[in-house]
Amino acid sequence: MKWARGTTPDGLEITGVITDDVFHPRAGFGSDTPKGEAVPLSDVALLPPVVPGKFIGLWNNFKAAAEKAGNDHPTHPLYFLKADTSLSGQGAKVDIPASAGRVVFEGELGIVIGRTCKNVTVEDAEQAIFGYTCVNDITSLDVLNADASFPQWTRSKSFDGFGVVGPVIDTDVNWKDLTITVLVNGRERQSYPASDMILPPAQIVSLLSQDMTLNPGDLIACGTSLGARPIKAGMEVEVLIDGIGGVSVTMTDPEKG
Amino acid sequence: MKWARGTTPDGLEITGVITDDVFHPRAGFGSDTPKGEAVPLSDVALLPPVVPGKFIGLWNNFKAAAEKAGNDHPTHPLYFLKADTSLSGQGAKVDIPASAGRVVFEGELGIVIGRTCKNVTVEDAEQAIFGYTCVNDITSLDVLNADASFPQWTRSKSFDGFGVVGPVIDTDVNWKDLTITVLVNGRERQSYPASDMILPPAQIVSLLSQDMTLNPGDLIACGTSLGARPIKAGMEVEVLIDGIGGVSVTMTDPEKG
Repeated sequence: MKWARGTTPDGLEITGVITDDVFHPRAGFGSDTPKGEAVPLSDVALLPPVVPGKFIGLWNNFKAAAEKAGNDHPTHPLYFLKADTSLSGQGAKVDIPASAGRVVFEGELGIVIGRTCKNVTVEDAEQAIFGYTCVNDITSLDVLNADASFPQWTRSKSFDGFGVVGPVIDTDVNWKDLTITVLVNGRERQSYPASDMILPPAQIVSLLSQDMTLNPGDLIACGTSLGARPIKAGMEVEVLIDGIGGVSVTMTDPEKG
Repeated sequence: MKWARGTTPDGLEITGVITDDVFHPRAGFGSDTPKGEAVPLSDVALLPPVVPGKFIGLWNNFKAAAEKAGNDHPTHPLYFLKADTSLSGQGAKVDIPASAGRVVFEGELGIVIGRTCKNVTVEDAEQAIFGYTCVNDITSLDVLNADASFPQWTRSKSFDGFGVVGPVIDTDVNWKDLTITVLVNGRERQSYPASDMILPPAQIVSLLSQDMTLNPGDLIACGTSLGARPIKAGMEVEVLIDGIGGVSVTMTDPEKG
């Protein structure tokens, strides 16, 4: 199933399931209970498919990127949190503030949690995964490295709109089959197989659940691989995963409105 | 005024104002509208006074600590985010998982945001500050420094319960007059003046609002100074700020329940 969130022409916010270009609202995220009339998908303005209680991003979780950078393979996820206010979705305009300087896209696979879990085994973690989505973990390289005494992971990744998620959460895909692709102005600039992951999804969830309780809707971006590139105001940047869909945003200059 | 959140004997969650040991429920955080009967404070189990959309923690924001460590004074806040699930309050039991290893308390002054702000001046930031609270930014030193390639600020500070906040938010204190004290089993182990801050509260809020939108309830822990020390299971740890109050938790060993 493909889960989404959106706004109807009447301004109503709905969560539900998309089938055959029709949006079927449900009582809540993951709920089996219908709520209200079905709406043609073309009438719905998509929102990020989930509002995560925490938005976790992994670093150094792909073999090709680790090899190129000369980084060891981590045995526990290395991660940061993106601010709640960084969340954006399909069709958003994402400002690049002057203070952000040099900014890159990072196309990533996102894991969405479906049930509360703490200290779970890899097997139970597998059951706790609700589905997968596309993430663009936009990052300011200049801010990340601006202070030699303190790498600014949170700040560099938390500007408003820098956490692009969508268009849907797919509950049926097999993550090993997926390819994460990024198109800039329609041209392919990043493409790598999810199967090159160092720590696979269920293991990530199991290990994170040793650190903290994970709740339904929590989102874990699995990290990026080779090919992240600079982006500038005016560019359209789409993260596309066949089987899930594509989430596209336009980068904008706040000085120019 | 002293704002708090708590649970009544009937299990009702209330937010409101405390005067003369009576809890006066209000319609919501910061609301002037009363809601329901006043309750004797002794009948209310306090919760963290706010559930922040983001829980920001500053590093290297006190002159004495910066001098001792040989760190330059930052001109922009250096910060991380603590996970939503790290939040705990007055009277909580906070597990120290075996994987956390060596853990320290960090007594801090917390700023609570009262209105949405983005790109605000220092003057407007001053108006956006709702009040102040006590924070214990509990940190695993072993996890923080476990990986040479990636300092784990988020993980080391995000174990369940490692973000202690309370007992109230005071809207009337002058931050310059405050002293942050930590008592371990009733013995003073940390004490420093808020006035030694490098970036003061309104400047912190103004600068953070250049990075991201701040919303009502967002919480910013101002960083700690000298005197953070190791804590172990069985210890009672209280962060006390005269004028605000004290928030106390008991550290526990999850293996022993």
